Amino acid sequence: RLPFVLIAGPCQIEGETQALEVAHALAELGRATGVPVIYKSSYDKANRTSATAARGVGMARGLAILARVREATGLPVLTDVHLPEQCAPAAEAVDILQIPAFLSRQTDLLVAAGETGAAVNVKKGQFLAPWDMPNVAAKIAATGNRRILLTERGSSFGYNTLVADMRALPIMAATGWPVVFDATHAVQQPGGQGSSSGGQREYAPVLARAALAVGVAAVFIETHPDPDHAPSDGPNMIPLRDMAGLVRRLAAFDALAKADPGLS
Amino acid sequence: RLPFVLIAGPCQIEGETQALEVAHALAELGRATGVPVIYKSSYDKANRTSATAARGVGMARGLAILARVREATGLPVLTDVHLPEQCAPAAEAVDILQIPAFLSRQTDLLVAAGETGAAVNVKKGQFLAPWDMPNVAAKIAATGNRRILLTERGSSFGYNTLVADMRALPIMAATGWPVVFDATHAVQQPGGQGSSSGGQREYAPVLARAALAVGVAAVFIETHPDPDHAPSDGPNMIPLRDMAGLVRRLAAFDALAKADPGLS
Amino acid sequence: RLPFVLIAGPCQIEGETQALEVAHALAELGRATGVPVIYKSSYDKANRTSATAARGVGMARGLAILARVREATGLPVLTDVHLPEQCAPAAEAVDILQIPAFLSRQTDLLVAAGETGAAVNVKKGQFLAPWDMPNVAAKIAATGNRRILLTERGSSFGYNTLVADMRALPIMAATGWPVVFDATHAVQQPGGQGSSSGGQREYAPVLARAALAVGVAAVFIETHPDPDHAPSDGPNMIPLRDMAGLVRRLAAFDALAKADPGLS
Amino acid sequence: RLPFVLIAGPCQIEGETQALEVAHALAELGRATGVPVIYKSSYDKANRTSATAARGVGMARGLAILARVREATGLPVLTDVHLPEQCAPAAEAVDILQIPAFLSRQTDLLVAAGETGAAVNVKKGQFLAPWDMPNVAAKIAATGNRRILLTERGSSFGYNTLVADMRALPIMAATGWPVVFDATHAVQQPGGQGSSSGGQREYAPVLARAALAVGVAAVFIETHPDPDHAPSDGPNMIPLRDMAGLVRRLAAFDALAKADPGLS
Repeated sequence: RLPFVLIAGPCQIEGETQALEVAHALAELGRATGVPVIYKSSYDKANRTSATAARGVGMARGLAILARVREATGLPVLTDVHLPEQCAPAAEAVDILQIPAFLSRQTDLLVAAGETGAAVNVKKGQFLAPWDMPNVAAKIAATGNRRILLTERGSSFGYNTLVADMRALPIMAATGWPVVFDATHAVQQPGGQGSSSGGQREYAPVLARAALAVGVAAVFIETHPDPDHAPSDGPNMIPLRDMAGLVRRLAAFDALAKADPGLS
Repeated sequence: RLPFVLIAGPCQIEGETQALEVAHALAELGRATGVPVIYKSSYDKANRTSATAARGVGMARGLAILARVREATGLPVLTDVHLPEQCAPAAEAVDILQIPAFLSRQTDLLVAAGETGAAVNVKKGQFLAPWDMPNVAAKIAATGNRRILLTERGSSFGYNTLVADMRALPIMAATGWPVVFDATHAVQQPGGQGSSSGGQREYAPVLARAALAVGVAAVFIETHPDPDHAPSDGPNMIPLRDMAGLVRRLAAFDALAKADPGLS
Repeated sequence: RLPFVLIAGPCQIEGETQALEVAHALAELGRATGVPVIYKSSYDKANRTSATAARGVGMARGLAILARVREATGLPVLTDVHLPEQCAPAAEAVDILQIPAFLSRQTDLLVAAGETGAAVNVKKGQFLAPWDMPNVAAKIAATGNRRILLTERGSSFGYNTLVADMRALPIMAATGWPVVFDATHAVQQPGGQGSSSGGQREYAPVLARAALAVGVAAVFIETHPDPDHAPSDGPNMIPLRDMAGLVRRLAAFDALAKADPGLS
Repeated sequence: RLPFVLIAGPCQIEGETQALEVAHALAELGRATGVPVIYKSSYDKANRTSATAARGVGMARGLAILARVREATGLPVLTDVHLPEQCAPAAEAVDILQIPAFLSRQTDLLVAAGETGAAVNVKKGQFLAPWDMPNVAAKIAATGNRRILLTERGSSFGYNTLVADMRALPIMAATGWPVVFDATHAVQQPGGQGSSSGGQREYAPVLARAALAVGVAAVFIETHPDPDHAPSDGPNMIPLRDMAGLVRRLAAFDALAKADPGLS
């Protein structure tokens, strides 16, 4: 079993300078810690709580920036897609297409993503059980694509709250596809601030540690140089300066979990 | 306050003959009971549990059939849209565009629907609180469209189960938009049959009665001549032959709720 | 099927004067509306959120006051018991022993209550499914007692929130025991105010109406002359002056539900 | 920060021979692994799903057996109490009194347990939020007792299902009292087998690992030589023969979590 991969980056692309700054910092973090890094950022926040919230730089400019990040840093790049027609152009610029949780049952989007041949990371809907995910993965696999990742990002728990059920990790791993734990979205409080979502940044490392002890292929952590002034997901992103320390700790839990042949 | 409207029809369009048969029966039911009827049917089930499940007749044929239903029966027609580009052609053929619950936060879809000028019925996501819906409606209202309906169809409650919180009805009504109660989807058991969703048809009338006593503008009930052999949502649809009796009972509760000026 | 019964009274006994004042008002309400009334009040709040909250007048004084209420007003009286040894003395003073929701699985308490021969009203635990209640009722029925009532008062829904699932009413009614809907506790927000529970008084009539439309044997509504200054459950109790109007409206829904032979 | 303690034993006392056999095995496990062990077993299952289920040997015989276990093995012993009057005699025989989750809000029981001077372990109710527990602990602390433990054992998540929210561990630890994670009850499926509770034994080690990575003072694991024939909690108990291997793995996660000064 391979060591864990870190999927990280700012929630949304704010511009080329910001994207490259964070990407270079994460590439350096990867070299320093030995943890493979995949850069994540969104060109469009297509489902903001409120219509007046910042949506991002748009697909054309965003994909150009992501291609530039990939070229400048050598990092693989992940971005999310929202409509079937976005899949092919996105797959030109990035390595992994991500299906947002709300869209995890949209057959056409899953199929279009699968047909690009790029790797596809599906976030489990907040409204799905972990044992519902084989049907989701099968929609992609039916295209012949065998590069599928499944992400746990929390389940609806009453109103405006999510809970991360750690049993979901081995249940989804039983599909045979690598499982990712999204530590920063699992602590989101959807709609919890009226016209935007709240979050509990302080518990993201707690849940990441738990997930690595259980055993996962990757951890997804959104990060930003200045989360409190980020245009989206500020309340749950980890400050960039705290990432190296966090990743070193997580790597120790990952190594312990994977050294043990008795772990499922 | 106006009497309640019945939004009803088979989950998906199976063909012109089936569509017209059900629509004529519902038009007759409307005449017999005095309850205004809106015909509902889907041309595409874009988010089936499994990729191998029947998706429907497709948009072009489906919209043609719905236009034919409207012409032949005089009933207003509602259908759901899944992608922004479907909104304009759908609005040519039908009176009300419906935004599926999973897509209730997709800004582009809400805006595209709003821009058609057709009425737009948004189903509240299973992952949303009722007080999150003003932000959703505002995305449509920002297009200048003032013909918005909000539908309660149940909230995630543990895995593979929904619960209908009756408090959601007055909370959503406080937005000023008409509120619809979707009785047949609120008893769905998402993914509850492995590769398809289960349902508890027997509780749909129970929840509809409760919702009308609380006070709603419309009730949404999927119906089929032979639910146990329907290609989708069979476990929760009401047999067509039971509809007239059900609607008469519901009308009595509606009349009582609306006769009382003290009801909020 | 009999018309619904109103179980009502102040959450806790504050003194003989208060108890008699409310009881006389409720007896008068019963005469005026034709709705049978059962007086409810607690001598001890044994599970307050905080140890410093007011617990009540104690069992000896409380039972004496309840006996006085029964004698002075002719109303049947209900009170809750918390320990097996309280059942026999309480059954001397009152007509119905109530098992609190948190204690609905405590076998010794259920058996002790059953053995008194008094009627026993069990509130379904916030942690139980409606289909778990036959096992609960069987513990009482095993004593030979056939005077059992089952009450829905809401299920845990995330943290500090309850939801009332209207499907629970017919599911519990299938046991054959009369079903009560507790409208004021179903809108409680347990622990929602830090050192006490919050509540949403405004939704109690909404849920009561829904429950009567579904069909129940009784509705439970806590009431107080001045809820905002009550020692417990103030946020969810209904002002006494609003009760007559509320009960009249509820009676109309009850009559409609029970006039219809087609309702399950 | 001290290494974790293992609280373990069979759900209920079946007899002296069984109790001593398991206790000696756990004492040996403690010596072999270096993990301090507290022996846990119940003399009465006071809240079984069904009245016909086995309740146990009773308090007098059970406490005598537990006293014998303590004497014969030198292990500290924990047992649960259900009524205030049980606290004093139980505190003669055992070291830690445990308050069952359903009873975690019963003030008299908490106070009676606190007044014995024995350590008191309160299981958080399935219906409580982690931030509700300071009020619970304060009821015990008001007796002057400063030997309090707080246990997470899962929260209600829909019907017949629990979910373990790992955020609850640091939230409860912020009270200053040691936090215990109950791995075998967190995978219980309450009432999930009709007249008894189901369970998912295979996920208990998964959740225990997660909790130790987050950081806890103790882990609670019920164990039995032959769980499938145990009179209660069989579906979630760990076979005794698997315990040594499990505890060694857990100890490695505990050591890693506690070696890191940066962990909260």
